[in-house]
Amino acid sequence: MPLLDQLASLLGPSGLLTGSDMTGFESDWRGLYHGRAAAVLRPADTAQVAQAVRLCAAAGASIVPQGGNTSMVGGAAPDESGAQFVLSLSRMNRVRELDRADMSITLEAGMTLKAGQEAAEAAGLMLPLSINAEGSATIGGVLATNAGGNLTVRYGNARDLVLGLEVVLADGSVFEGLRRLRKDNTGYCLRQLFVGSEGTLGIITAAVLKLAPRPRQREVALCALPTAEAALALFGRFQQHDPGAVQAFEYMSGTGMALVNALIPGATLPLAEPAAHYVLVELATPREGGDLRAGLESVLEAAIEAEEVLDAVLAESEAQRLGLWMLREEHSEAQKRAGASVKNDVSVPVSRIPAFLEEATRVCEAMVPGIRVAPFGHIGDGNIHFNLVQPEGADPAGFLARDHALMDAVGAVVQRLDGSFSAEHGVGRLKPYMMPLWRGGAELEAMRAIKAALDPQHLLNPLVMLPRP
Amino acid sequence: MPLLDQLASLLGPSGLLTGSDMTGFESDWRGLYHGRAAAVLRPADTAQVAQAVRLCAAAGASIVPQGGNTSMVGGAAPDESGAQFVLSLSRMNRVRELDRADMSITLEAGMTLKAGQEAAEAAGLMLPLSINAEGSATIGGVLATNAGGNLTVRYGNARDLVLGLEVVLADGSVFEGLRRLRKDNTGYCLRQLFVGSEGTLGIITAAVLKLAPRPRQREVALCALPTAEAALALFGRFQQHDPGAVQAFEYMSGTGMALVNALIPGATLPLAEPAAHYVLVELATPREGGDLRAGLESVLEAAIEAEEVLDAVLAESEAQRLGLWMLREEHSEAQKRAGASVKNDVSVPVSRIPAFLEEATRVCEAMVPGIRVAPFGHIGDGNIHFNLVQPEGADPAGFLARDHALMDAVGAVVQRLDGSFSAEHGVGRLKPYMMPLWRGGAELEAMRAIKAALDPQHLLNPLVMLPRP
Repeated sequence: MPLLDQLASLLGPSGLLTGSDMTGFESDWRGLYHGRAAAVLRPADTAQVAQAVRLCAAAGASIVPQGGNTSMVGGAAPDESGAQFVLSLSRMNRVRELDRADMSITLEAGMTLKAGQEAAEAAGLMLPLSINAEGSATIGGVLATNAGGNLTVRYGNARDLVLGLEVVLADGSVFEGLRRLRKDNTGYCLRQLFVGSEGTLGIITAAVLKLAPRPRQREVALCALPTAEAALALFGRFQQHDPGAVQAFEYMSGTGMALVNALIPGATLPLAEPAAHYVLVELATPREGGDLRAGLESVLEAAIEAEEVLDAVLAESEAQRLGLWMLREEHSEAQKRAGASVKNDVSVPVSRIPAFLEEATRVCEAMVPGIRVAPFGHIGDGNIHFNLVQPEGADPAGFLARDHALMDAVGAVVQRLDGSFSAEHGVGRLKPYMMPLWRGGAELEAMRAIKAALDPQHLLNPLVMLPRP
Repeated sequence: MPLLDQLASLLGPSGLLTGSDMTGFESDWRGLYHGRAAAVLRPADTAQVAQAVRLCAAAGASIVPQGGNTSMVGGAAPDESGAQFVLSLSRMNRVRELDRADMSITLEAGMTLKAGQEAAEAAGLMLPLSINAEGSATIGGVLATNAGGNLTVRYGNARDLVLGLEVVLADGSVFEGLRRLRKDNTGYCLRQLFVGSEGTLGIITAAVLKLAPRPRQREVALCALPTAEAALALFGRFQQHDPGAVQAFEYMSGTGMALVNALIPGATLPLAEPAAHYVLVELATPREGGDLRAGLESVLEAAIEAEEVLDAVLAESEAQRLGLWMLREEHSEAQKRAGASVKNDVSVPVSRIPAFLEEATRVCEAMVPGIRVAPFGHIGDGNIHFNLVQPEGADPAGFLARDHALMDAVGAVVQRLDGSFSAEHGVGRLKPYMMPLWRGGAELEAMRAIKAALDPQHLLNPLVMLPRP
């Protein structure tokens, strides 16, 4: 029996899509890749995933796992061959278990991150992972790509939340690692190998994630600062004060803030004078007693005294809190309205952020006069979205023709500062060519050896992450 | 030239020990293994490690990496063949870098954990990993075994502190992964594979570890509780109050506490009545302002009100704080003085601790009438040292003859509760035989495939962790 018929018989009518039913699965949402799949597989449970993978392995057919299809780097897009199977776990979207004493939740991989957050909230707890795409992105996807986001500075990346995994391996066997142990030293830590492997080593079908207590106090401040060094110094002050309460610590450039202020209706900068640098800090704690506000004020007073902070505004209501966050969250939209832009999702050691911002800005301004360098991001994690907006009134296509030159120039600065070319977004199909330069030698060889050991036929998401030898 | 001569020429006189100079390297400290080594290699730097590994690989000679030789499971002991080389990095013990803004430290693997802690303290920061053996255990060893300890409940295991690693691989190539990035999604997370691999995949030569701010307030309380469920409920109360401040949350049984009280000079239980269960909680924070004490008191008052806590004493001075900790830390010594004992380092999901304690105690008391079941440990991590002390006045040898039967009986309870047979101590040479039962099937197959991929000749610490196929 041909493979497609075997799969149809295994999965039933609702478990296999072909033809025009595959619309939306064959292209990535950024429109970078437009492929053609043999079929979209939608198994109903782990046993069906295992059996489908086994059938594909026997036939030598490759599989592209796809969660919410929100990859920034084409990590879930099939190629043009028409021979790859897209695997969607959207029917596997249950909460398997929630344990309040453990503060853990066991979720199937096809559930959206948002639904996972809501399940935790319903139990009076918090799933402390938040990204822009959380309404579509799935648990399987955020784990396969080790998602980051705004809360990383407090709770770590997706990787840091994983206690256990269930994974279907390339031969269709199942790694039954849904443990929820805080301490367990019994062999290699396989779960951390699958987290961030972008679907190339196995199919994550379920996960146990750590939960956190829900905050009962929350304070947000927006600060204007004279220098990037001052932003780091302020971060240090908050870390030295109450590190468990620093929920987010976000950087924005004066250029980016000016774009938001000018181009986003309803966005207003609630400070008397514009500045060259801004920080949005959110403190939160389950403690009761209202001490958070006093702590925030005392840290800011000391920073103002030291001339690290020029001015600051504290949210006095939930509406004001959302208003301040809007200034940060509308950065991408404002940049889109300002014309063409080139995006760099990079990281450097936290202490080198000021050097990075200065050097990369200088390099880009020299390459494209009038370019608007508008970096923002998770400065507490050393992660900057170093975005470059076209000069005002310039031709977008002409600017975008320089995109690789600009990315390479920024990359050279990042590499000199021992940083990473992909802090949050992963490698996907977009960036495997960068791996030999950045992660070459023994490191890339070890990755290839592991891939060959766990997926000897090279059938799982074969075009992503590792470059062709 | 014979291998030994090649190594001698590479490493020089202080870099290679033979004969009686190897005393102390050939046996483990518990006295479980007495081996004979071909030589002890003491390279001076990473290049020498790489070259020595390359020479051994070419000759097919196996290598046993040894840090402070404090393994509880014979993880660093050479076999009796006289053909294995012990590799000690004791000459590689420098701080390579400390970055206060990053809150990171780069340490060579041969430095003791204690020396690493001191280097962090000298910079006004804290290396938040602490184990009993820290004066001897080395950075390489605590990472290769993913050490835990008392601070895990707040800062995680050794694994959670690692930002980057430098590792010499089995072919003598070097994984240059000494990055100190908080976010980096560029390929498989190799560092988490080497952490906890017990020297079987590569030789960790240096590491970048996260540091934490030093506490400025600290409060300790000892609580008497009626049940193990109450201990969990109390843990939940502290987590819901100020999770960032829960520095340690340690459980002790009434039996264990009575042994300490009776057998350790200077130990006195500062509570009016003995109880069946105890918890020692330590809160700490860099915050200033003295709010920690009020928070501790309010949580304890609510717990006393709910009859979860029978009585509690708060340390009023540093001397009292040490006195309360002494009651916890002298558990092992008191048990030693009480006669022969059988140790189980197990973990279960946190919520199943009460069920585990009850079932395992019942099973053991049925097997050995008069046995003193004296569990203690890191209840906030689900990690209990379920220690069994011989009946008073019984023959120690007769009791120890039952050790495997008792361990197997405890293990059966742990397995039924989805726990681990080794929470902190690893597998070593003592426990590989347990792997097929506990981590068998696809999981063990994947581990074997990874071992074969990264160490195809099976030369790195070949007797530990994975059982012979």
